[in-house]
Amino acid sequence: MLINKKSPHGGDIYTNAVRLDFSANINPAGMPDAVKQALHHAVENCGNYPDPYCTELRRKIAEYERLPESCILCGNGAAEMIYAYAFSLPKEKPALIVSPTFCEYEQALAAAGIAAEHYLLRETDGFRLTEAFLQLDFTKYNAVYLCSPNNPTGITVDPMILHAIAKTGVRLFCDFCFLDLTETPEKYEIPALLETYPNITILRAFTKSYAMAGVRLGYAMSRNTEFLAAMSAKTQCWNVSALAQAAGIAALGCTDWLTESVRKISAERRHLTEELTHLGIRVYPGEANYLLLYADADLYGKLMERGIMVRDCSNYIGLSAGFVRIAVRTREENDALLTALKEVLK
Amino acid sequence: MLINKKSPHGGDIYTNAVRLDFSANINPAGMPDAVKQALHHAVENCGNYPDPYCTELRRKIAEYERLPESCILCGNGAAEMIYAYAFSLPKEKPALIVSPTFCEYEQALAAAGIAAEHYLLRETDGFRLTEAFLQLDFTKYNAVYLCSPNNPTGITVDPMILHAIAKTGVRLFCDFCFLDLTETPEKYEIPALLETYPNITILRAFTKSYAMAGVRLGYAMSRNTEFLAAMSAKTQCWNVSALAQAAGIAALGCTDWLTESVRKISAERRHLTEELTHLGIRVYPGEANYLLLYADADLYGKLMERGIMVRDCSNYIGLSAGFVRIAVRTREENDALLTALKEVLK
Repeated sequence: MLINKKSPHGGDIYTNAVRLDFSANINPAGMPDAVKQALHHAVENCGNYPDPYCTELRRKIAEYERLPESCILCGNGAAEMIYAYAFSLPKEKPALIVSPTFCEYEQALAAAGIAAEHYLLRETDGFRLTEAFLQLDFTKYNAVYLCSPNNPTGITVDPMILHAIAKTGVRLFCDFCFLDLTETPEKYEIPALLETYPNITILRAFTKSYAMAGVRLGYAMSRNTEFLAAMSAKTQCWNVSALAQAAGIAALGCTDWLTESVRKISAERRHLTEELTHLGIRVYPGEANYLLLYADADLYGKLMERGIMVRDCSNYIGLSAGFVRIAVRTREENDALLTALKEVLK
Repeated sequence: MLINKKSPHGGDIYTNAVRLDFSANINPAGMPDAVKQALHHAVENCGNYPDPYCTELRRKIAEYERLPESCILCGNGAAEMIYAYAFSLPKEKPALIVSPTFCEYEQALAAAGIAAEHYLLRETDGFRLTEAFLQLDFTKYNAVYLCSPNNPTGITVDPMILHAIAKTGVRLFCDFCFLDLTETPEKYEIPALLETYPNITILRAFTKSYAMAGVRLGYAMSRNTEFLAAMSAKTQCWNVSALAQAAGIAALGCTDWLTESVRKISAERRHLTEELTHLGIRVYPGEANYLLLYADADLYGKLMERGIMVRDCSNYIGLSAGFVRIAVRTREENDALLTALKEVLK
């Protein structure tokens, strides 16, 4: 096992005996059939190199996002774009990460030789970013990292606060990978936001929305096409596989399926929130397909004994023992989790 | 189109109207059926994240290479490992590239902020690396890049010369991506070579041998596991897709198929060499599934008019107009190329 890839994230079903995986934040509806069919079809053409420009895929994404194609850069999962972004930053100043959040930002910054500082969201604010953040001197930082809905809290950033940060001119990395799984995917008016602030780079993923985590496909968007080109230069020529390109094109034809998924996820999120609260578990009001919980018990360990894996969040900067993240899954699976939790908390 | 991804390599069948592609160096036998089946099967499991450790794949590669698993690092194509290697080098000294060769080494070095110098192989030596190279002061370089069989010449490096370079202690990057497609894949005795020289990193690809270019899978090997871990830290957690891992595992069960492919390729390479020489074209004695040619005519342009794409090599450092690279393909395709060349040269 390579020493730098230890205890990565949720979803490591390979080194655990897992009956139910609540640790990975993937659309519980699974992959749309049209995407599967596109993958099967693409297998037959995999003898050829993939299109290095992702021409057709970028055209479809541009339509979906209502942006010019030149503002889209595709990657081998959104995670590759996190690294390409960090490698493209100037190295003189530190970056500021609003935490607790996804740890790959800091790992990518470390790989690029850039120091990271953390602005800690407070539990007493419900892990919500407040106007207090705007008092910071952003000129001290080469970039600010924001995740909305945040991972692992599911809390979104108020658009007014996001605008106020962007207005300072600081380079702003907005991870919106889970935004399409919330009930308000339009809340940031992305085309106008990017048009107004060329200092913003937005990250998106197919991974979660279309349950394509094994395929790897994500993209970055910015009006600063020079910066996107610099990011692209940090990656190889053929970074997006022919399979991922085909899957992404097919996925963008399944937006009704996504809308329907969000409807189900939202209903299940409300159901889980209600039932978990009854059990005396603290539930943060996340808006995506996962929830951050707090309990005094060892939920992770006791659920794992029952073959249910949740995401232990004690190793997140700004969180501690007792915090776990659960995915919102199907009614049957969610009820199995609730049943197990009742036993655990008895 | 992104400004940094211009005129990439061979195989860009997406922006050209191509009837026969002789520009990409892929096994003409295509993808083995077992690999296709593995890919189809893997599609069904793509809702999950891939194994970040590539556990089973690395175990199979380790068996095939007769090396410990800890000496193997997998990537999203060999090209990703070229970037991870460059990003892991110290930046103080320049790197030395034996040229003409694959241009991604220099692009990756540029992305990492490392200067590249070129040692030019001479046409009068048949583009063969000679003992003159050993007179260099390698302490001036942070790494030496060697490709064997070299791309685009197909010429291999004499193992004695390779040993002599490694013995100096200089960090040595050996791209052996096409070695398995030659008739002497064992010529470097890789396990012993790596054991003796922890300063060597070897690059391998599934892309070419198993016609999996669209899937993306390659790997790096070294006895310096600390350096491999540093390389791994330059990439995201899930860089190898679930599809690529499944395809690689299946491919390693198809070594007989590879042996048979090499037999056919070698016969076709001899046939092409003989016929091309008759046509007055200069053919360099490459050992892989492609050949470097020289003619005074504009072979690239005239073949493209006939829907046949070859690789124009005039933009390789150390080559000039008149050099093209052709893939060795099936008898039928090779004869179609020869027929077209006869017309072109009439």
